[in-house]
Amino acid sequence: MKKMIGISGSDGDDLSLTPSTLKIAEEVGYYVAKKGAVLVSGGRGGVMEAAARGAKKAQGLTIGIMPGSADEANSFIDIAIPTYVGYARNYLLVRSVDALIAIAGRWGTLNEISLALNIGKPTIIIRGSGGWADILADEGLLKKFEVRPYVASSAREAVELAVREI
Amino acid sequence: MKKMIGISGSDGDDLSLTPSTLKIAEEVGYYVAKKGAVLVSGGRGGVMEAAARGAKKAQGLTIGIMPGSADEANSFIDIAIPTYVGYARNYLLVRSVDALIAIAGRWGTLNEISLALNIGKPTIIIRGSGGWADILADEGLLKKFEVRPYVASSAREAVELAVREI
Amino acid sequence: MKKMIGISGSDGDDLSLTPSTLKIAEEVGYYVAKKGAVLVSGGRGGVMEAAARGAKKAQGLTIGIMPGSADEANSFIDIAIPTYVGYARNYLLVRSVDALIAIAGRWGTLNEISLALNIGKPTIIIRGSGGWADILADEGLLKKFEVRPYVASSAREAVELAVREI
Amino acid sequence: MKKMIGISGSDGDDLSLTPSTLKIAEEVGYYVAKKGAVLVSGGRGGVMEAAARGAKKAQGLTIGIMPGSADEANSFIDIAIPTYVGYARNYLLVRSVDALIAIAGRWGTLNEISLALNIGKPTIIIRGSGGWADILADEGLLKKFEVRPYVASSAREAVELAVREI
Repeated sequence: MKKMIGISGSDGDDLSLTPSTLKIAEEVGYYVAKKGAVLVSGGRGGVMEAAARGAKKAQGLTIGIMPGSADEANSFIDIAIPTYVGYARNYLLVRSVDALIAIAGRWGTLNEISLALNIGKPTIIIRGSGGWADILADEGLLKKFEVRPYVASSAREAVELAVREI
Repeated sequence: MKKMIGISGSDGDDLSLTPSTLKIAEEVGYYVAKKGAVLVSGGRGGVMEAAARGAKKAQGLTIGIMPGSADEANSFIDIAIPTYVGYARNYLLVRSVDALIAIAGRWGTLNEISLALNIGKPTIIIRGSGGWADILADEGLLKKFEVRPYVASSAREAVELAVREI
Repeated sequence: MKKMIGISGSDGDDLSLTPSTLKIAEEVGYYVAKKGAVLVSGGRGGVMEAAARGAKKAQGLTIGIMPGSADEANSFIDIAIPTYVGYARNYLLVRSVDALIAIAGRWGTLNEISLALNIGKPTIIIRGSGGWADILADEGLLKKFEVRPYVASSAREAVELAVREI
Repeated sequence: MKKMIGISGSDGDDLSLTPSTLKIAEEVGYYVAKKGAVLVSGGRGGVMEAAARGAKKAQGLTIGIMPGSADEANSFIDIAIPTYVGYARNYLLVRSVDALIAIAGRWGTLNEISLALNIGKPTIIIRGSGGWADILADEGLLKKFEVRPYVASSAREAVELAVREI
């Protein structure tokens, strides 16, 4: 069975997404594919699309767990799972993966990060990518909780941490 | 149709739950019932049980959206919805309510708060109750996001904010 | 905790629904309420609405597990659970109840009957109500399967069978 | 994006599964793969395993939408989606596919067939494979319903019907 690594991050309508954040996302996809794992995401734009594009550059396989129709999938998704359960698909995405990598993000990304930690799924956040990832990278904040994400400083390190955990 | 107000907070295994936090939870349940709304929760222990106990003191109706069997419901739950979908029930809980009040909490509570904000459900967090509620009550943090929860300083204020929104 | 009895049957757009079938549905709701159980349905029109109306005539409590918004609930629903998971709500409905009573019905009703039988939930179909209920009431057909629904000849008998099972 | 064809049928514990039925299932998987489509199933034994084995014989890609853990997947599944939502995964399976082929089957298979028809997904049942597929192949029964499955007489014909529809 194939190993699956998830990526969590904002859709394309997040105005705070920078070219640098999208570059990190693309690199995550690329390294996931290079490691022979399947890249799983929510299948839409922004971070999800950049990561899927990166995975395809390395001839990887990409799965999009869609909130609704497969028509919403970005053009780098090989296999769309059109759940039609709205954001309950976040749960399915987190359950599907062997490890989750989170980049930047708003409440939706935080929803996936918190769920992954809640069910004990290895979770890696990339420091310096902005949004919730950066807030959660704060050691003072994290030490309040027993269960914590890993913090990586680059796409490459994040994928290596993910692969080590699965 | 009855108005539904949700409560989100830790299960009884959260060692950081203080008597003071549980008292706030009980008051939330009490005031929700006094306002004639149904109290909806995840149906288990800790904050969920304290709130349901409070609601029953005011002759309210309590619903528990259970991750699994109805057997896990606390003894103050009138109607248990045994979903058998695990923590995907968090999504159902958030969808079910007209407003969500969050107290203290760990990753599971944050999962519900973030989801509620993501789908635009009125969300009230109680400052001073500990856990994620206190972290999110920080204005410096919240001003990074367009969509934000309301911050209340007491159970009574939280329920009044919730009722005003629904 | 309250006992919950579900009703499954066509929405109001089923042209084969007869006044007689709707009368049976209303009686089911009435007797469920008389027995002190909560009536659970999909919350919409047709059989669901008739049953909820019957339950309210006997001062019962009615829950509607909605595929989408609470706005779609019929006017006899006290508590709407707006799941926003589409027909995956059929699973939640079947899981929620202690027993399921099915009347007439098309593929959607069959979906709930088959799921109830698949998970071992007591299932009662009413013979003479039309649709799938009548097809399934055939003994020759049912003897092909190890797990079978109960067959009742009236609303009253169906509710009595349901109550006996829970 | 890849085309996805689903197969629905009994798990390995169905004592009425014959070698002939399993052969049909294997052929369905084989032809699905030959047509370049992804084979989607519930990922477990019996019909699901036979079909996945067939798909792998033709170098196809196989996805299993699991009720729980990926550990329950048969050994011919490439990508397991461990949903942890129990039989609510039937909904996800039906939503995921462009067309559904059903073989023999008990209540669980009927659950998937009825759901597929209810949401208007092209559905093909194979006559002569036993169980619910054979019951539904009866024209007298089907003419009672506006929405009907296609009836095929062989695995090859079923896959050709599925491909024509997608």
